[in-house]
Amino acid sequence: MSTTNPQFLEDFAAMSGFGATPGGGVDRQAGTPADHATRQWFGEWLARHGYPETVDEAGNQSGTLELVPGAPYVLVGSHLDSQPLAGRYDGAYGVLAAAHAGARVAAEARAGALDPVYNLAVVNWFNEEGSRFTPSMMGSSVFTEKLPLATALATTDPAGTTVAQALAAGHRPADADAPVLAHIARYAEIHIEQGRNLEESGTQVGIVDRTWAASKYRVTVDGAQSHTGATRMEDRRDALYGAALVIAAARDLAAGFEPGLLHTSVSEMYVLPNSPVTIARQVLMNLDLRSPDEDVLARAVDLMGKWIGDAEERSRTDIRLEQTHRWGLVAYQPEGVALGIASAERLGFTHTDVMTVAGHDSTNLKDVVPTVMLFVPSVDGISHNEAEFTRDEDALRGVELLTEVTRRLVCGGLETQ
Amino acid sequence: MSTTNPQFLEDFAAMSGFGATPGGGVDRQAGTPADHATRQWFGEWLARHGYPETVDEAGNQSGTLELVPGAPYVLVGSHLDSQPLAGRYDGAYGVLAAAHAGARVAAEARAGALDPVYNLAVVNWFNEEGSRFTPSMMGSSVFTEKLPLATALATTDPAGTTVAQALAAGHRPADADAPVLAHIARYAEIHIEQGRNLEESGTQVGIVDRTWAASKYRVTVDGAQSHTGATRMEDRRDALYGAALVIAAARDLAAGFEPGLLHTSVSEMYVLPNSPVTIARQVLMNLDLRSPDEDVLARAVDLMGKWIGDAEERSRTDIRLEQTHRWGLVAYQPEGVALGIASAERLGFTHTDVMTVAGHDSTNLKDVVPTVMLFVPSVDGISHNEAEFTRDEDALRGVELLTEVTRRLVCGGLETQ
Repeated sequence: MSTTNPQFLEDFAAMSGFGATPGGGVDRQAGTPADHATRQWFGEWLARHGYPETVDEAGNQSGTLELVPGAPYVLVGSHLDSQPLAGRYDGAYGVLAAAHAGARVAAEARAGALDPVYNLAVVNWFNEEGSRFTPSMMGSSVFTEKLPLATALATTDPAGTTVAQALAAGHRPADADAPVLAHIARYAEIHIEQGRNLEESGTQVGIVDRTWAASKYRVTVDGAQSHTGATRMEDRRDALYGAALVIAAARDLAAGFEPGLLHTSVSEMYVLPNSPVTIARQVLMNLDLRSPDEDVLARAVDLMGKWIGDAEERSRTDIRLEQTHRWGLVAYQPEGVALGIASAERLGFTHTDVMTVAGHDSTNLKDVVPTVMLFVPSVDGISHNEAEFTRDEDALRGVELLTEVTRRLVCGGLETQ
Repeated sequence: MSTTNPQFLEDFAAMSGFGATPGGGVDRQAGTPADHATRQWFGEWLARHGYPETVDEAGNQSGTLELVPGAPYVLVGSHLDSQPLAGRYDGAYGVLAAAHAGARVAAEARAGALDPVYNLAVVNWFNEEGSRFTPSMMGSSVFTEKLPLATALATTDPAGTTVAQALAAGHRPADADAPVLAHIARYAEIHIEQGRNLEESGTQVGIVDRTWAASKYRVTVDGAQSHTGATRMEDRRDALYGAALVIAAARDLAAGFEPGLLHTSVSEMYVLPNSPVTIARQVLMNLDLRSPDEDVLARAVDLMGKWIGDAEERSRTDIRLEQTHRWGLVAYQPEGVALGIASAERLGFTHTDVMTVAGHDSTNLKDVVPTVMLFVPSVDGISHNEAEFTRDEDALRGVELLTEVTRRLVCGGLETQ
């Protein structure tokens, strides 16, 4: 097989021009003009390659290739939206790889070289990142009926714009005939690893077998406004000090476990009133705990509760935790993992089973249909950063692997192996 | 003398209706509709009491009372703008007290009961609070030529509105004949204490003799964006964690000195990119250190520098401090303090010398003309909070004291004592 594919690299470079940043990355948060421009470019790419394009009411953009009239679909894809000042690969690589893989498999089927039992669709899920509109994985959550469409459409960004308004500003309205969950039989997705396991072990591709467990919270710290200069230190009920203690505690908590057993973070914060001369009355922030071990996560959540009690006492504030997401150590279907491994071996790629720490749209899809999730190496594991990078040979190897996986899925590979 | 003055209390209640909040306070940040409405009401009050109203180009609103044609002015005032969700007294009490004091002294002078050597003006300084437009004490800084007018007018709020635009939206444009620094001979201001010294010592009024020393900084914490879930803890360069360590260090620093010797705070923070799944690449925040002892402040600044080095190392971030304000332990003119004391004794009020921790417009004015700064008690010292409260009898005692001080200043009291 070949790992040269100049057309893929050329398309990838063209796509990376939308929302391009001076630092070599992209900035195309969901529903912004840069996201819409990328979607329009992708719609035109689909049209040129014989995929009729549709958009569903949650903003998910699909291209379908009919191979077996009336049969369910194998869906392959990822997302084109990005974090602010993000890298070029996260999501977008997987969408373009799916489009190339689908086109190749369809051509083979139409040439009579394959015996398909399913139709084929590629998808760009709306708002996987969740930086502008929370929660993340919004489009695939609506598609898999975990999130009501109306809730998603009414979600606002910090400026008060709703998802419905952001979508209406885009390049096309929703179509009645967009793919729906009932028509989907299989899902596949490829993504850069966003970690260093493949790179450090010198492995060419990863087959994702599990997601880390995660508990995510909204943290509210309530203090009392007062004058930053005049108020005696012992009289203060400083919400920002309370928040700082929580941030430091989350970090210390992770340091108390073996490296790699617990990841903790706080990354989003709103301070009220956020004035240079008034002590904060309230801080709202997120708190994210993840582990590859459910027991570790449970112990960490328990410890965090105690440490938050200490933070309340020291800062004379009231701190509330409200769980916003929770997922356990969920396995991908073993038959999908086996199909991924067989595909890698067929192509002669070194491979390993890997866990994903990050959530992906496949996290939603695997709960409703058999799903194959693939990784390619990511240099230094840099992610959500303009410096994110995957070498061309790794990116192209991934396209080959996804093509083989798609080929097998379309031909009923999960049924027959 | 009398400490009943129903008209003052009635005016104060009417004024407190502008920008009134459900929590019993006011919210009228500089140049907002609520601030403009208060200014318009005050302009009408001035007109009804025979003060021609003028507004200067920096938005300072004055009413003048001519007693001695061609003579310089005794200026008395404070500010009507507030912090967000603030109390009713901060600033506004001093403006209304000045207006009442001025009207009474003018009436006495016009009735032949006084022998004035100066004219009289009351002032509402624009944007003392600095919460919407930084820096604070903006109007009095322009008036005293510490801040160029053009710089003030070009200052933007977080939404990008300039001071010039905010002023243009107000009730009247600038007048050519507004008071200017060259015409001012004396300044007096009264304010609630924003501390508990008067209350705890059971003293009726305070004569301010010094300001605490202060060093204020802009803090920039530079880290690197990465994925909150996937990035290994040891690879993180989390700017928000670095910021949290600085906030905790500032607090610990204050705890290392005797109570009341050092006040520290961080109260304003901007996180980039502020996303739930991306580690912060940069945090911008303020840092404020204040002390009644210059040596303590110098030691604190020195220690803080060392602790910031530790925070950088622990968080793998780069932390820069840039000084934005610095003032020493500055004395008010002793002859002004003496005049304040003599006025309190004349009225039979218990009094004490006090320091001010907070900055006031008088902090600017005392650098250019002899200035008298007075305090009245503030219950529990609560400040920049809707619960801020001064008892009517204390507020009225303050009006009496400011009237006596104004009377003496207008009659050349500083020259003759």
